[in-house]
Amino acid sequence: MSETNQQFVLASRPTTHVTPDNFRMIESSLPTPGDGQVLVRNQFLSLDPYMRGRMSDAPSYAPPQKVGEVMIGGTAGVVIESRHPEFRVGDPVVGMLGWQLYGLSDGKGLRKVDTRAIPLSAYLGPVGMPGVTAYFGLFEICAPRAGETIVVSAASGAVGSVVGQLARAAGCRAVGIAGGPAKCDYVTGELGFDACIDYKRPDFVEALAAATPNGIDGLFENVGGPVFDAALARMNAFGRIALCGLIAGYDSGEIPLHNVRSLLTSRLTLRGFVIAEQPAIWPKALPKLAEAVAQGTLRYRESIADGLAAAPAAFMGMLGGKNFGKQLVKLF
Amino acid sequence: MSETNQQFVLASRPTTHVTPDNFRMIESSLPTPGDGQVLVRNQFLSLDPYMRGRMSDAPSYAPPQKVGEVMIGGTAGVVIESRHPEFRVGDPVVGMLGWQLYGLSDGKGLRKVDTRAIPLSAYLGPVGMPGVTAYFGLFEICAPRAGETIVVSAASGAVGSVVGQLARAAGCRAVGIAGGPAKCDYVTGELGFDACIDYKRPDFVEALAAATPNGIDGLFENVGGPVFDAALARMNAFGRIALCGLIAGYDSGEIPLHNVRSLLTSRLTLRGFVIAEQPAIWPKALPKLAEAVAQGTLRYRESIADGLAAAPAAFMGMLGGKNFGKQLVKLF
Repeated sequence: MSETNQQFVLASRPTTHVTPDNFRMIESSLPTPGDGQVLVRNQFLSLDPYMRGRMSDAPSYAPPQKVGEVMIGGTAGVVIESRHPEFRVGDPVVGMLGWQLYGLSDGKGLRKVDTRAIPLSAYLGPVGMPGVTAYFGLFEICAPRAGETIVVSAASGAVGSVVGQLARAAGCRAVGIAGGPAKCDYVTGELGFDACIDYKRPDFVEALAAATPNGIDGLFENVGGPVFDAALARMNAFGRIALCGLIAGYDSGEIPLHNVRSLLTSRLTLRGFVIAEQPAIWPKALPKLAEAVAQGTLRYRESIADGLAAAPAAFMGMLGGKNFGKQLVKLF
Repeated sequence: MSETNQQFVLASRPTTHVTPDNFRMIESSLPTPGDGQVLVRNQFLSLDPYMRGRMSDAPSYAPPQKVGEVMIGGTAGVVIESRHPEFRVGDPVVGMLGWQLYGLSDGKGLRKVDTRAIPLSAYLGPVGMPGVTAYFGLFEICAPRAGETIVVSAASGAVGSVVGQLARAAGCRAVGIAGGPAKCDYVTGELGFDACIDYKRPDFVEALAAATPNGIDGLFENVGGPVFDAALARMNAFGRIALCGLIAGYDSGEIPLHNVRSLLTSRLTLRGFVIAEQPAIWPKALPKLAEAVAQGTLRYRESIADGLAAAPAAFMGMLGGKNFGKQLVKLF
């Protein structure tokens, strides 16, 4: 075991695009757990779009990440020292230990997981925050009925891929929106969506219309901007919109919405949500997601960057849509 | 009694602004009620923003008004001939008889009203469709709790004026947005709102912020565009938005929304609605609105144009915000 810990701290706040010098790697000595604490070696770090929001100090649902502190982040790892009665050395655990090789925890927010039928990394994806996000937005907001059409943007991503598969399993037509033919082929071929439209196509608007011949009843929106506008124009009366993300505008600032009129004329209901505020859904969603992954009926893909040093580049790539499926960093 | 009827038909569809030649007045002989029908002399015609939508053939919640047919519109009048068992000559009635002096009805959608304590015209305003619209959007969507802040745009209008007064009665801080100091003075002085901000002020955004020191919990949106954006920026976490109208864009086409991010970061719920689709709310809302008007606790103002020939100009004026309170046309 290494005697030192490596950590990425927020070095500066991005003004538009995230750049490598927004991060700084530091080394520190390995901490020793005090009474009631555990030391975890993080096998995987999760990279997620919400982190971009925390890097800014613009008002948002969560306070900004402080400059000089370890970057926030979900992690999956193994307990290597324990002075906590509920954790033993060797326990696989997921938590929010941040962008670092090792993390101390008092057990709060640290969850033991079962890796016999489900790989550890999946607890950062379909059986973790992204999966629960998909479950909540789909079932609590889009409220799909069999036969309806559900559209999800960023469909090949960690959240979107789960949304469409759950919608299919609920008897809906699932239509994805993704960037590029490779992602779209994956969404239809491997994930089983009924259709997937490449938003980079010049005829994107027409293609989305052709793929939603009966309109759209539920929209799970991760992107914003022109992609959101195109979907809004296809919404059926009394449609539901789960607003989960607006990744198109995270770097470049506000991207206006033009199709506001559809919200009124189609009498739509839109709800923005943050999964961390919905604790009641986790115990409901996780067993179902775990069962589906264990049985192989809920499929997923991971983009795995190698080593902590690769995290900033992988994060910047994800914000630009370069990842394919859940973006992880393998730390060991 | 005149032997002829006068009617305005839709002559052509407006492309941007409504113009006088979109309307044509025709004369016809007075119809004779058949079995089960009544003939009504319309005392008042109601002019409402929704009519602008019906004049276009862009897709919307209702089919467009047909060219050559009598313009749609709410009316309040008196039965002058009846071959219907439930109506007698002299009965005051409200209905949807359109832009014409006299109308035939089979009784469907025609409602007898009590004019002993409430003037006939009020059944086209606070005790009619605008009042019920206010009631539904406020209580069913904005769901105000005592102590919260409710903001309504077009606050001096037929709907907005009721929203703020109901919000005040529910123990809320009511803040209006209106065009010009005269309307704002009326909204605070006569209607009793806590504040009203003139959206034409150069410092509108700052003034709205100052008038909502605790943020906005419920927004009743009638306007759209920059007014909507400014209110969005002040929304508190888990705020509710009743999207009732977007009058800023009715003539000029789409006005983009820039503050989409607030919907996500403040985890807002927005719902577009059309009151004609909410029949269950009418019997709940109307008695309360009638009682409040009869007691003088729900105040209102009317802009009354004189004579059917004045209807097109009054309608165009209303779309431009020239009316003050409920826009009516007095036909007799």
